Amino acid sequence: MQDVFNYLEQNFPADLEAVRAFLRQPSISYTGQGIQETAELVCGMIADLGGTARVIPTRGHPLVYGRLDEGAQQTVLYYSMYDVMPTDEPGWSVDPFAAEILDLPQFGPSIVARGAVNTKGPTAAFFRALKAYKTVRGKLPVNFIFIVEGEEEMGSRQFNQFVPANKELFADAKVALFPFFSQHENMQTYMWLGTKGILYFELTANGGEWGGPRSRGIHGCFAGWVHNPAWRLVQALATMVGPDDRILVEGLRDGAVGLTPAERALIADNLDLFDTQTFLDANDVKRFKWQGDAIAQWEKLFTEPTLNIDGIWGGYTGPETKTLLPHQASVKMDVRMVPNMDPDHVVASIRQHLDRHGFADIEMNVLNKYPWSKVPLDAPVVQAMLKTYTQLGHRVQVQAINPGSAPYWIFERVLGIPYITGGLGHGARQHSSNEYCTVQGVLDFEKSMVLFLENYAQMV
Amino acid sequence: MQDVFNYLEQNFPADLEAVRAFLRQPSISYTGQGIQETAELVCGMIADLGGTARVIPTRGHPLVYGRLDEGAQQTVLYYSMYDVMPTDEPGWSVDPFAAEILDLPQFGPSIVARGAVNTKGPTAAFFRALKAYKTVRGKLPVNFIFIVEGEEEMGSRQFNQFVPANKELFADAKVALFPFFSQHENMQTYMWLGTKGILYFELTANGGEWGGPRSRGIHGCFAGWVHNPAWRLVQALATMVGPDDRILVEGLRDGAVGLTPAERALIADNLDLFDTQTFLDANDVKRFKWQGDAIAQWEKLFTEPTLNIDGIWGGYTGPETKTLLPHQASVKMDVRMVPNMDPDHVVASIRQHLDRHGFADIEMNVLNKYPWSKVPLDAPVVQAMLKTYTQLGHRVQVQAINPGSAPYWIFERVLGIPYITGGLGHGARQHSSNEYCTVQGVLDFEKSMVLFLENYAQMV
Repeated sequence: MQDVFNYLEQNFPADLEAVRAFLRQPSISYTGQGIQETAELVCGMIADLGGTARVIPTRGHPLVYGRLDEGAQQTVLYYSMYDVMPTDEPGWSVDPFAAEILDLPQFGPSIVARGAVNTKGPTAAFFRALKAYKTVRGKLPVNFIFIVEGEEEMGSRQFNQFVPANKELFADAKVALFPFFSQHENMQTYMWLGTKGILYFELTANGGEWGGPRSRGIHGCFAGWVHNPAWRLVQALATMVGPDDRILVEGLRDGAVGLTPAERALIADNLDLFDTQTFLDANDVKRFKWQGDAIAQWEKLFTEPTLNIDGIWGGYTGPETKTLLPHQASVKMDVRMVPNMDPDHVVASIRQHLDRHGFADIEMNVLNKYPWSKVPLDAPVVQAMLKTYTQLGHRVQVQAINPGSAPYWIFERVLGIPYITGGLGHGARQHSSNEYCTVQGVLDFEKSMVLFLENYAQMV
Repeated sequence: MQDVFNYLEQNFPADLEAVRAFLRQPSISYTGQGIQETAELVCGMIADLGGTARVIPTRGHPLVYGRLDEGAQQTVLYYSMYDVMPTDEPGWSVDPFAAEILDLPQFGPSIVARGAVNTKGPTAAFFRALKAYKTVRGKLPVNFIFIVEGEEEMGSRQFNQFVPANKELFADAKVALFPFFSQHENMQTYMWLGTKGILYFELTANGGEWGGPRSRGIHGCFAGWVHNPAWRLVQALATMVGPDDRILVEGLRDGAVGLTPAERALIADNLDLFDTQTFLDANDVKRFKWQGDAIAQWEKLFTEPTLNIDGIWGGYTGPETKTLLPHQASVKMDVRMVPNMDPDHVVASIRQHLDRHGFADIEMNVLNKYPWSKVPLDAPVVQAMLKTYTQLGHRVQVQAINPGSAPYWIFERVLGIPYITGGLGHGARQHSSNEYCTVQGVLDFEKSMVLFLENYAQMV
């Protein structure tokens, strides 16, 4: 692979500029800003490799579907997303869409931009890596089917509907690949054998038959006579999670199974590869939620669902001291589901919990839900990625499941194929201000991707 | 008084336009918009009566101080405010600063504008009423000292400091008058013999030594490991008020006394004057917070403090489904204090409650506080207002205390003079969208004010 590596090194300035150019194109799925333009840019990247691609309209943001036939025996389904989170967080020190390179204290030269790691950075770099391989070798070692979605940050709604309804478009693919920078802040490489599922919903307390103003906030002095929907929401939430952070919703964790012996062994094998302090420092957190040894901590993360408050709002939240008895208060929440929890059962358990505790009036609005997914350690695509990391001098932290969520259930349960997320490189602060990826990591990522494809083609 | 009444009726179109013109000048204390201009307009109104007035700079918004010597025996301290609430509420059906006249279903022609009732409507109408009196009679029956503040909606901070530090400016005044539209939706006239005090504060849960992200929101998937400040705020709030809406903060209501026999008798005397359904309909509320007979309801309102959530916010509150573990969550709250509660003691009791329940990390930021105030029923200024209402055909609902707040403690405790709020006229939806006052009410108000001044001058 040294020929391709040399080419990548020599041409890296152009690849870095290509990645930055892609990051400069906004593509915020929540607002629609730049969505269509970005989908077309992705089509252009596929065409540039000699493939065919089209922007497929949906009821939401378009999908990009493409094919690249290299006459190879194996076909890989490339999955990624072209949308990014909004940039409304305070604390950005640069324009989120300028893709400036800053010399970050701990990480050296890094691209600071929305999407640098999640996921336009890896996406653009992956296409440049393929281009380099093809330039040096004439053709790629595998064929590709490409599916790139524009609603990942909104729960992959179109993707989750399109693939099951168009399975024939993916029939040739035997594995799925999601290229992603997979090194922690301390440069430790990690790999997850699956992802948690997600349920995202809103609860809203409105004034109604139970009391409270129904159509608008009223003068706060009437609190002596009139119920407050914000207090009602607080009371309802307080029944769902205890002061000790335990989930109190009966039935919510039904189906959750512990780790297999093999998964527990993985934790023990990998303990020395994860630096607790690095995690705490990177997130500016002083202490973990649960006490206990490291194995117990990991087991908690991998086997327990979470019930998180993403946001809460109601009443007057501006400057100074407006007195108001609001007519409405809302909360955004998510549940991360572990094997073998069922999303619909979780929805039902939360609804039943509210009803049983006297909060039948509180509205529950489900915005997203999809299940967890798992991939076996011995799948060739997993082993090909592990081999790649090893060849490049990395010992890998392999863990049972990603505590985050991705719609991999589509690969596992709809298409019936294994999948892998991987690639060297480091970036972080996704969904937060000053999202970044290191410049060195982009090059390392490109190398790991071409080597992975070679390894996979030889292994099967 | 028929001569002045006739003049007011004949010249009402001009007065109505003057009121509307004043309402068209924004004066939002939270943002500072139009504050200086409006203070100068108030000076102009005083000068137009032949008085002297000046805009007094403060560390906040300016005060307007003026004098009008009519060679009368008595001097009345006119108190009002020229600031208004912001207009950020949804639901305005007209430009809040256009002062349009709409034909409201229940109330007929009405000015719909921010400040229509609270308090630029009554303020402008009062000056026009004085002008009419003076035009017809040559001079007013009393002298005036005017103090008009620009931070009433922010807790009267400058006013509360300026008056105690400049008592000599108010030495001539024997009573204080706050002219205000004092008829309910069903046109029932009401009068309060005092006001509750107010404490307005924010509580904020930040990530810190106890856990949680300290400087920015992090990816929601880490909820398995990291505490969430929004949950912490919810848990803290749930310790402060029970599911039955009872305040659980130990010591908060220390000092609260029940009603005197005279005050309780007033409730009974006035029961037929208050229509419960009118209140519920006007506020679009289906049921009261407490069950019990009407006397118990009133007693609750007059003798119990309230702990209200004005607003709550934290994390991601935009569209769609951003997953986030926020680093901060906040709530704005107010306590309305009844006699003989002490604001500083209430602050201390809330702080102690949080500390004792393990929430010492939750920050408490006091934005405003001032005490309750009372005025005796037999004070001449109160009797003069009652006589005025009676002469104009109104039976008055006299109640122990206003459940809202006003800085009348300045009159009672600093200047040592009695005070009255009064005037016919109806407006409502203050602090809410589509604030309004009826056109007929403006004329009724003007008549009641000139008659009141005459009554007061004759009575003392």
